[in-house]
Amino acid sequence: MASAAETDAMRRALRLARNGPRGLNPQVGAVILSPAGDVLAEGYHRGAGTAHAEVDALSKLAPGEARGATAVVTLEPCNHTGRTGPCAVALLEAGVARVVYALDDPTDAAAGGAERLRNGGVDVESGLERDAAEELIRDWVHLQRTGRPRVTVKWAQSLDGRAAADDGSSRWITGRAARRDVHARRAAADAILAGTGTVIADDPALTARDADGAPLERQPIPVVVGETEIPADAAVRRHPREALFFPTRDLGAILDDLGGRGIQTVFVEGGPTLESALVREGLADEVLVYLAPVLLGGSRLALGDLGVPDIASARRLEVASIDILGDDIRVVARPVHDTQGDS
Amino acid sequence: MASAAETDAMRRALRLARNGPRGLNPQVGAVILSPAGDVLAEGYHRGAGTAHAEVDALSKLAPGEARGATAVVTLEPCNHTGRTGPCAVALLEAGVARVVYALDDPTDAAAGGAERLRNGGVDVESGLERDAAEELIRDWVHLQRTGRPRVTVKWAQSLDGRAAADDGSSRWITGRAARRDVHARRAAADAILAGTGTVIADDPALTARDADGAPLERQPIPVVVGETEIPADAAVRRHPREALFFPTRDLGAILDDLGGRGIQTVFVEGGPTLESALVREGLADEVLVYLAPVLLGGSRLALGDLGVPDIASARRLEVASIDILGDDIRVVARPVHDTQGDS
Repeated sequence: MASAAETDAMRRALRLARNGPRGLNPQVGAVILSPAGDVLAEGYHRGAGTAHAEVDALSKLAPGEARGATAVVTLEPCNHTGRTGPCAVALLEAGVARVVYALDDPTDAAAGGAERLRNGGVDVESGLERDAAEELIRDWVHLQRTGRPRVTVKWAQSLDGRAAADDGSSRWITGRAARRDVHARRAAADAILAGTGTVIADDPALTARDADGAPLERQPIPVVVGETEIPADAAVRRHPREALFFPTRDLGAILDDLGGRGIQTVFVEGGPTLESALVREGLADEVLVYLAPVLLGGSRLALGDLGVPDIASARRLEVASIDILGDDIRVVARPVHDTQGDS
Repeated sequence: MASAAETDAMRRALRLARNGPRGLNPQVGAVILSPAGDVLAEGYHRGAGTAHAEVDALSKLAPGEARGATAVVTLEPCNHTGRTGPCAVALLEAGVARVVYALDDPTDAAAGGAERLRNGGVDVESGLERDAAEELIRDWVHLQRTGRPRVTVKWAQSLDGRAAADDGSSRWITGRAARRDVHARRAAADAILAGTGTVIADDPALTARDADGAPLERQPIPVVVGETEIPADAAVRRHPREALFFPTRDLGAILDDLGGRGIQTVFVEGGPTLESALVREGLADEVLVYLAPVLLGGSRLALGDLGVPDIASARRLEVASIDILGDDIRVVARPVHDTQGDS
């Protein structure tokens, strides 16, 4: 059983973890408690090549100060020698008596830390605030497992599936609440993807902004996909983060590249061509659709060809949520990979 | 104030009213109560040219038996001499002392009955169970006001607005619950409209059926619209109700004709061409969309051209309801006739 002081320390460690960057390594936080439950030191991981959270916290203590202490960590201490030594060993050497962690290490390479600590005579407890810790590194786990960012394909459409009227005008199909939601999700994403067609036609800023148009603090890296040259004065070139350009149609290779950079999530807003291609190639992990209560008809479809010849090949989705935002309907859904019929 | 006996009688009258046909005349029910509150007689209107509900009820009483009684009627007794004399006069002549009715007569021609009764010394009270009475004859009122049935345009589509996959297959985009809902709504409609294109391509039965495929008790009149000849063995020709054929594209004229026949509601399931035309011409009073959580892409759009050149001309809808049916989303919405922007 974790004590109240340990629970408080774990919540603090979860907050500390978020100070670190989202990237190739997971966000981890740690708090060292005295046997009496007082906070001795805090730490978090600052990204690949830097000290892990436990070591960061221990580094703030004088030699011997951690003897008999409890380390509270959001992730199972690693048992892996990479650019830094195993945290399990560091904790043993510091003389820590007890380790409380939230989530078992989900990777094969780093797992085993708990066992090593137990073998070293340390009292180990796991599972405290596990759900929050899982949520914290969910996208990192996806990146670890697939080598690619989690891809959310977003579009706004009329009820009848059009992204714009026949003359191309689309401001605004959806209302204020939907647009605010989009900007919040842009800010939460590591990267935002658009195709060259949309960048040339609409010159989007690809920034996350508040209701007054002011930039939000966190901005996604803009990523432009396609072989056509983008104008020198394109708005995306003035984005607070330097844009990445991928002059290729090989979407899998682009996602591999982004994954290699530690980009854990990608928000795709890049127009029907890019979005249809991602769905067609099975690369969308999630679709986010804003349905406006309007009918447009005509030829400006939100999605084009998806390579679905017959109804049995329909790309079935599992609906995660349906919400009303102002006058609009927001649908979040994920592809179902086993095809199932319904009589 | 209406008594408990009068409230009970009004609820009974509302049920009686539904025994009559939906047609050119409203459905009306009547109950005659003795001064002590006992039911003396019941009646309802059996359609144009037959006795009105009050007269139907009075006809079951011996001369003088209604003297001092209370007539409880779902609609204001008429003051109009058509194929039958004014009910207000019949009630006065029968010596009724009190009249309780639910809804004022919404037509100019027949209104004034309450005043005539009051002038004749009868105690008149209105508004008891008004909402239910209004709902009962809502479609008839629409027919009175417009000369046309209320038109619901229904379609099922993938989330991205397709009615079928590229090879034309569409069984089943939506699930069981949505299909059951459609059949219940077919059964509630006076007529069901389909275009010749759909009738030839899909050979639909246009019947209302239960989950096992058995016909429901009430069936809409099938109406086939378009200039192409329908095969002699088309399923619609075996419909329990005789089909109407309109070899024209003049949709307004068709609705006028149907209105003239006393058809109060039309359920349109007739394929993208007919449905787009009704929306384009502003003839849809309501759209009913079943959104299946699938993506299809491709060319088989649920709606085609709506004559919307730019976003300012978008056909804006007011959403009446959004519900989850099984895995599908049901949206009921009505056209907003004044265009409004949203910044």
